[in-house]
Amino acid sequence: MALIVKKFGGSSVATTEKIMAVARRVLADKKPEDKVVVVVSAMGDTTDDLIQLAKGVTDKPYGREMDMLLATGEQVSIAILAMAFASLGQPSVSLTGCQAGIDTNNAFNKGKIKAVKPDRVLAELAAGKIVVVAGFQGVTADGDITTLGRGGSDTTAVALAGAMQADVCEIFTDVDGVYSADPRVVKTARRMKEITYNEMLEMARLGAVVMQPRSVEMGKHYGVPIHVRSTFSREPGTIIREVYTVEEKEFIIRGVTHDSNVAKVAILGVPDRPGIAYKVFSALAQANIDVDMIVQSIRNADKNINDIVFTIAQPDLPMARQIIEEVGKTIGVLGVVVDENVAKVSVVGAGMYGSPGIAAAMFGALSDAGVNIEVISTSEISISCLIQADKVKEAVGAIHARFFKDENNAK
Amino acid sequence: MALIVKKFGGSSVATTEKIMAVARRVLADKKPEDKVVVVVSAMGDTTDDLIQLAKGVTDKPYGREMDMLLATGEQVSIAILAMAFASLGQPSVSLTGCQAGIDTNNAFNKGKIKAVKPDRVLAELAAGKIVVVAGFQGVTADGDITTLGRGGSDTTAVALAGAMQADVCEIFTDVDGVYSADPRVVKTARRMKEITYNEMLEMARLGAVVMQPRSVEMGKHYGVPIHVRSTFSREPGTIIREVYTVEEKEFIIRGVTHDSNVAKVAILGVPDRPGIAYKVFSALAQANIDVDMIVQSIRNADKNINDIVFTIAQPDLPMARQIIEEVGKTIGVLGVVVDENVAKVSVVGAGMYGSPGIAAAMFGALSDAGVNIEVISTSEISISCLIQADKVKEAVGAIHARFFKDENNAK
Repeated sequence: MALIVKKFGGSSVATTEKIMAVARRVLADKKPEDKVVVVVSAMGDTTDDLIQLAKGVTDKPYGREMDMLLATGEQVSIAILAMAFASLGQPSVSLTGCQAGIDTNNAFNKGKIKAVKPDRVLAELAAGKIVVVAGFQGVTADGDITTLGRGGSDTTAVALAGAMQADVCEIFTDVDGVYSADPRVVKTARRMKEITYNEMLEMARLGAVVMQPRSVEMGKHYGVPIHVRSTFSREPGTIIREVYTVEEKEFIIRGVTHDSNVAKVAILGVPDRPGIAYKVFSALAQANIDVDMIVQSIRNADKNINDIVFTIAQPDLPMARQIIEEVGKTIGVLGVVVDENVAKVSVVGAGMYGSPGIAAAMFGALSDAGVNIEVISTSEISISCLIQADKVKEAVGAIHARFFKDENNAK
Repeated sequence: MALIVKKFGGSSVATTEKIMAVARRVLADKKPEDKVVVVVSAMGDTTDDLIQLAKGVTDKPYGREMDMLLATGEQVSIAILAMAFASLGQPSVSLTGCQAGIDTNNAFNKGKIKAVKPDRVLAELAAGKIVVVAGFQGVTADGDITTLGRGGSDTTAVALAGAMQADVCEIFTDVDGVYSADPRVVKTARRMKEITYNEMLEMARLGAVVMQPRSVEMGKHYGVPIHVRSTFSREPGTIIREVYTVEEKEFIIRGVTHDSNVAKVAILGVPDRPGIAYKVFSALAQANIDVDMIVQSIRNADKNINDIVFTIAQPDLPMARQIIEEVGKTIGVLGVVVDENVAKVSVVGAGMYGSPGIAAAMFGALSDAGVNIEVISTSEISISCLIQADKVKEAVGAIHARFFKDENNAK
């Protein structure tokens, strides 16, 4: 017997026909003794349609009432999927986030799961039913409906799987696994059979869009393997887990990622005094702006002034610029320069620490491809380079070819 | 200060523009110190659309999952209306049936309210908010979502008003009150300022479609006045209450109703023995078929056989016919004759008991109009005649003219 949580996203349940296909797929994969929980998102564009509806009455479509509204999307999906199972003769029951025991804090629109109380889910499974749970939603201690923000249905699935100590959480999606690079950019990218939580987290942080970091963190926290696989194929995909269990040809580098949604900010001529960096970055932190790739360099040692360069997400740029210009006036700087025409390419691999030459190989690949490096930053399991945005494709391709050269046709 | 529950139906909230209009209307009518609860139905055709969606996966669209599905309709309305209030600067909060404390039994699709626990509603009102509640839905002791069946949003509104001892429950609808006859049939029908619960119940039972009997019964049970009024006008409508409070020109007859959704069943040559009627009508009761206007007449006294005639709702006819034919065989009857081409016209008025001549006046009006009476039945506050269906309009017109003759132009 296996206890399995499966999650299907909005495009997998976009129509009643697709919902019937999901129901048939789940039944085809289910062994008689398996206990199965299916987490679903809202049908197709439902969430966008509801947001449009809200815009008919308010120009501030967020807060508690928005979650009340958006939660209906998943509630429709679960009811229809449970009916689909019933029409195929499979006992089934649908549960809202609240009914499934997904308890959150009261941060509407971006609720955080505080606890999962799967008593009802377990009771329905014990009664022989497939349990269909609304993803993306939870309930506060006051009984108010919350939604979990981007990637929320994945979070629901992994959290439920963790709380129930499920054998695996399967995330069905329109790609068939996690690749060594974005297959739309690198044709020879190879699908991994397994990847560790830490590697997946680093890849997600550095631009891989397969899974939101939050869900991976939750899988790591609970030790639940996450199987990323295709809705449209019965082939296995990629399993995210703590340590490898299958023998794969060893790669120090597991993946090459890129992120074009970045902007560079350079503060020129910053006085070299204690507390200056603190002033700059605490002002950004107060505005909830994440800062990445910080580099400080000496501009003029005689005058004791430095340059500080860092990157942020592009949507944060207008607010960051305003903050930095204000702070800059109070501390006295030469100027602030911003550049949106940049991108970050990275290599990720848990084995790179203690493997000299990885950085050199990456820089060499970029150099051979004629790509200039503007900023470099490293973590224990990654190296990132900031480059000009229009060079992303060549850069990712060149780095991937360097590290996966024997595997060009192995996909 | 007044505590007021207002209910707006699906056509009043069919679009975001109409929802904004409802929000403005509620605010325009609200005195600063008033506490207001607004109960709403699903937007326009939402419920029908959801039923169609369910038909995409099952040919049995009912049961628990159907309520899970349909409840989303009202949940969308309440969120949008609460946002509309917010956009007008009015603090507001939306509550599902569950959150508003509408506890029901677990009869899915036709849940009955067992208790109303309005603690949350009262707390939000005390905090200065307009509380927007989803009509038509409740929750079982197990936390499952139920819907309340036809007229369910009215029931929610009246039950909430009763539990909170509200001053009035206002039902906003597309007619501007309760009329002495259907205004589409009788042009001179007059709107009543007030009507008693019992009269309204009898009129609803006999074909008036303004309010479902269940909501009126609940108003009577709690002693909450129900104000039936127009969404599109600020004129007062009709108040349903225990006793009249305003002086109206006294009418013994309050209304003339008609019901074309009836069928006549005649069992011919029934043996005149004790227990025969019991056999017939208990078989119908077991099949949940409501029987009305029962008349037994002697067919042949020498042979000790009678005829039994009764009426039922037309949709029940196929099943009733089958049951009666089976019972007829076991007791030995001459035959069963059914007629769908009939209608019932009635006069209703609490004052008719002890006012001789009402029945005679009604029969006279029908006779003068050339309408033949097939069956007559009476209650304490009504007299009904079964007639041929194609005579309904003349019959209602003639009776109304007879009893309201001084008021022909008073509307």
